[in-house]
Amino acid sequence: MSLLVVGTTALDSIKTPWAENPRLLGGSASHAAVAASFFTRPHLVGAVGDDFPRKYINLYHRHGIDLQGLQQLSGQTFHWSGEYEVNMNNRRTLDTVLGVIENFSPTLSAAHTRLPYVLLANCAPDLQANVLDQMKRPKFVVADTMDLWLNIARPAVLKLLKRIDCFVLNDSEASQLVEEDNVVAAIPRIHKLGPKYVIVKKGEHGSVLSGPRGLFIAPAYPLKKVADPTGAGDSFVGGMMGYLASQKGSVEKNLRAGIVRGSVTASFCCEDFGLKKTTKVKNPDIAKRVRELTKMVNW
Amino acid sequence: MSLLVVGTTALDSIKTPWAENPRLLGGSASHAAVAASFFTRPHLVGAVGDDFPRKYINLYHRHGIDLQGLQQLSGQTFHWSGEYEVNMNNRRTLDTVLGVIENFSPTLSAAHTRLPYVLLANCAPDLQANVLDQMKRPKFVVADTMDLWLNIARPAVLKLLKRIDCFVLNDSEASQLVEEDNVVAAIPRIHKLGPKYVIVKKGEHGSVLSGPRGLFIAPAYPLKKVADPTGAGDSFVGGMMGYLASQKGSVEKNLRAGIVRGSVTASFCCEDFGLKKTTKVKNPDIAKRVRELTKMVNW
Repeated sequence: MSLLVVGTTALDSIKTPWAENPRLLGGSASHAAVAASFFTRPHLVGAVGDDFPRKYINLYHRHGIDLQGLQQLSGQTFHWSGEYEVNMNNRRTLDTVLGVIENFSPTLSAAHTRLPYVLLANCAPDLQANVLDQMKRPKFVVADTMDLWLNIARPAVLKLLKRIDCFVLNDSEASQLVEEDNVVAAIPRIHKLGPKYVIVKKGEHGSVLSGPRGLFIAPAYPLKKVADPTGAGDSFVGGMMGYLASQKGSVEKNLRAGIVRGSVTASFCCEDFGLKKTTKVKNPDIAKRVRELTKMVNW
Repeated sequence: MSLLVVGTTALDSIKTPWAENPRLLGGSASHAAVAASFFTRPHLVGAVGDDFPRKYINLYHRHGIDLQGLQQLSGQTFHWSGEYEVNMNNRRTLDTVLGVIENFSPTLSAAHTRLPYVLLANCAPDLQANVLDQMKRPKFVVADTMDLWLNIARPAVLKLLKRIDCFVLNDSEASQLVEEDNVVAAIPRIHKLGPKYVIVKKGEHGSVLSGPRGLFIAPAYPLKKVADPTGAGDSFVGGMMGYLASQKGSVEKNLRAGIVRGSVTASFCCEDFGLKKTTKVKNPDIAKRVRELTKMVNW
């Protein structure tokens, strides 16, 4: 079984109090697809400009990511530039150039429309809906989002929520969406908007899944140093969906284990800028952290 | 086996954006002893003034708390008055009257000095040390603290840390103590100050234990509404120590399960002002939440 990933393929220029890294490979689909690639073959749908470095195409290839759905269009690649403060919880967008992503409207190949697992990684909800329109009876559809879309495209997000199985968002976005600061109280209100499963990401504090089996409180893998949290949420949902796509049996049965894999891929993502650390990771590294986390929550 | 609890026995006047409750039973030793009483017989060491309401003495009795070590002195009971903001994470002290606690210097009974489990609940580190000086070969000594003591009595806290088995503090206090914002990085530095076990409380995000078996990531019991978090940390450590004192076998073996009991007693504490909810709880309520939490972390 396999996984379709649609989202942004970007160049990220990231500043922290300690370092500055220009034009790294970034974007929600890049982080998600690389994280998913440890478990399954991801099929990436996205657009890059003619400035997109060849070395990043090679990187996708090295991770076994199918690029049939990656269009190289005339113009600039989506470019995000941001700055983190000392505690890494606050970030500021310095500049955004949408470039070729602005009017990107993909037409999926017949093979892609039949993929069972669909990850609508963070991008404009109209683009997410466009891809979902083309899918034929997917088994499990997950959407991620960000505060920007809740601000400028709320109706489109609400419409999408009625069509997906699982919605992934962070705690401040959950508060923003349903105007409720308490995550536990916000979750039932999000379910009422459509999705059977809701996952609230809480950064270093882990995540909470809500679904038919009740709540699942998932730990984050504890890190002594976070170099750059950009893409951690995408890496989380990518790892989770890659794992799900690789497993037999019901989503219900595998989702918790998938979230733990997502926690682990996200932890690697945080340990260096962009995809620098994640692309050095091997499967035994992931298995080791999964074992460690399993021990850390057992009583 | 049984538990000695020393700390403050106070009257708390608590304001939240929704309600105001004057002169409730409060103080670290009150919250800790009531939480511990679900598992073992706590022996309370503390001081109250002649204004201390008889009904609170009765409350201690109803919970089977031994009051041989509770002195009623001439003067005012320790009184704390504080206010919470909307999100309940920020609180402001409006007024503090130390009263009889200011010069309290207990002399323990011979029976008390031989108790195996010792909880030095949050109070002046000199008072904690005074009690510890009198103990004969305790099996397990835990100390809690608060930001105030790290500010005004840091040398006394540091001295105490060399004499205890386990130190419990919240995440902001951990940062303050070792000047490190990252909890995972702060923990080894706290171990270097003395304690074999370190527990960092993170409120709604649960807690982290560090000890010879590595890290344990413990969940908080998820609550839709927090009425008043005052005393939750005391209730946490009280529940934990009560459970430990009730169990056979090594502390190492029982500590994780104890922390889960502490999470549960703390969750009840948060659901109403002061001890209002905790004093209505029965053992099956605690067992139910422990079962629920067990399911919520299982994958």
